[in-house]
Amino acid sequence: MQRKKLFIPGPVEVSPEILQAMATPMIGHRGLEYSALHGAVKPKLKKLLYTENPVFLSTSSATGVMEGAVRNLCAKRVLSCTCGAFSERWHEIALANGKEADPLSVEWGRAIKPEMVEERLATGRYDCLTLVHNETSTGVMSPLAAIAEVVRRYPEVMFVVDTVSSLAAVKIEVDRLGIDVCLAGVQKAFGLPPGLAVCSVSKRALERAATVKNRGYYFDFIEFKEYDDKNQTPCTPAISQIFALNTQLERMFKEGLEARFERHLAMAKRCRAWASAHFGLFPESGYESVTLTAVSNTRNVDMKHVEAELAKRGKEISNGYGKLKNKTFRIAHMADCAPAELEGLLRELDEIVG
Amino acid sequence: MQRKKLFIPGPVEVSPEILQAMATPMIGHRGLEYSALHGAVKPKLKKLLYTENPVFLSTSSATGVMEGAVRNLCAKRVLSCTCGAFSERWHEIALANGKEADPLSVEWGRAIKPEMVEERLATGRYDCLTLVHNETSTGVMSPLAAIAEVVRRYPEVMFVVDTVSSLAAVKIEVDRLGIDVCLAGVQKAFGLPPGLAVCSVSKRALERAATVKNRGYYFDFIEFKEYDDKNQTPCTPAISQIFALNTQLERMFKEGLEARFERHLAMAKRCRAWASAHFGLFPESGYESVTLTAVSNTRNVDMKHVEAELAKRGKEISNGYGKLKNKTFRIAHMADCAPAELEGLLRELDEIVG
Repeated sequence: MQRKKLFIPGPVEVSPEILQAMATPMIGHRGLEYSALHGAVKPKLKKLLYTENPVFLSTSSATGVMEGAVRNLCAKRVLSCTCGAFSERWHEIALANGKEADPLSVEWGRAIKPEMVEERLATGRYDCLTLVHNETSTGVMSPLAAIAEVVRRYPEVMFVVDTVSSLAAVKIEVDRLGIDVCLAGVQKAFGLPPGLAVCSVSKRALERAATVKNRGYYFDFIEFKEYDDKNQTPCTPAISQIFALNTQLERMFKEGLEARFERHLAMAKRCRAWASAHFGLFPESGYESVTLTAVSNTRNVDMKHVEAELAKRGKEISNGYGKLKNKTFRIAHMADCAPAELEGLLRELDEIVG
Repeated sequence: MQRKKLFIPGPVEVSPEILQAMATPMIGHRGLEYSALHGAVKPKLKKLLYTENPVFLSTSSATGVMEGAVRNLCAKRVLSCTCGAFSERWHEIALANGKEADPLSVEWGRAIKPEMVEERLATGRYDCLTLVHNETSTGVMSPLAAIAEVVRRYPEVMFVVDTVSSLAAVKIEVDRLGIDVCLAGVQKAFGLPPGLAVCSVSKRALERAATVKNRGYYFDFIEFKEYDDKNQTPCTPAISQIFALNTQLERMFKEGLEARFERHLAMAKRCRAWASAHFGLFPESGYESVTLTAVSNTRNVDMKHVEAELAKRGKEISNGYGKLKNKTFRIAHMADCAPAELEGLLRELDEIVG
């Protein structure tokens, strides 16, 4: 099969320099070399997340840490904000771990709004809220800062945010917003191969975790903290991905974080303009994702044909997710994707569906 | 720092060809390319494990699957066979997941014996037994076949075996032995970078899992099975490691499994002879590991000196684990390690401590 450049919302296209970092010869995870690597990555992650909280490395996909967060932080009841497949899954994960949880649901394509959160938190039933910032299944970005302002008024409520497909593409000021757990996988806007997740954990989240029973072991935040303090992880980590992460964080700072965020926003605007001109945008107006554009397939084009034609040209986009298959399709523009590469893709889409 | 060739019991030295497989360009995990890769790996893993059971890929260290196994399979009470740090940790993991569990403990350096298992299982209290085949902290290999014979007489008991540092170095006939879950990380005898675990799960284990509550999501065997049937994983997998695994399994079959097992046994015998001549062996006689030699530091040599001298020569072995630090040291001889490389190491150790 011909190699295809990925414009799918994760795993994303990985730069050659990062692929080569994945081939770094192995080191022991209890030796000085690993501690030096871990210690080099830590301050860089804090800078990227605008936080003084520790940022842990979890050898798992982000889903593992989503599970860990509810196991560690919910002693009473979770409010699961759901607006698509991944946020709904998180609600199911809470239930699968024996947690009491209620969904705050909106229709796929709509965003979670601060007033909805306010209404539910005011009941006093919850000690944990889970929010997917950028719902990859619908291309909707919920208004994080406005929701954070509401959640901060409920000090008992742990604010757990999945930024799987927004972190490193959008400025997320963890400390200013008061996010207790901010988590992401590295195969989206970080531009790395999958297999590693990162999560910042606040002091009060660690204090809560210490009081919660049945946290398990593999995603136990208390264990994460104990080893992170020694520049290690509780279990053998995905060392290759951590080498790649260290290199990629350097590249991000070289580009400049503000420039990086602007590049992502510019590509999003360009892709939305293209989508609006040819089709329509699926998300509620004003809540379109910055990292992927969910296009309403208003002309009912044959997605199999589009995918096959793009494959001939060595490129790949994503069909709609689950029940949105063929009704929408998704173009991702994140990580190391350059505006010129997006232009190239859109030109080819013009040829195919224009 | 000078690059050191690893003779530590994981992560092990990784061959250049495998490192390059880690740098394979990325593919989507819901597309045909990934399914083809997953589908190529499956029969190879079954061949390596001598099983018709599905062998799942878990994006985690082996510890994650150890946790998953007790969460999925124990509805009553776990018997945790403990003979070192990693088997003791497994017992703690069972407790940390709210399971009832009792240890069957022997002193570090001793092996678990079939008659000990028989005595405990005869009480009828247990529905799950966890055994670490090759205890990496003590260099002890417990007699798997003899223990399996006992466990098979208790059909209610799920037989869960951690073969983290023995699978792919020693013949483990999963189906013949009646192992319900056989799990391993890939950074030991497989010779891959860490970040992925494999586990075979029997039909009756899947049937048991279906009846057990609070299995969680990330390590839910039922989810593993559902996606594995489609040549996918429930969450985004460590695709780079799976590319490397596919390449490495091919290399294993090219060497020949019997030849591979013989190579490991020959290196173990050679290393034991060296250790006996210069020091002593830490494990109970007859239960020495085939993949690492735990040496009793009978001459009380300064391990810091040994490590520093070896580092100058670009090599690394392991000090004893935890409470065995300085009292023992460990030389690993597994995965792609060639007998000539072990000879080279032993010659240098002769210079340093001879």
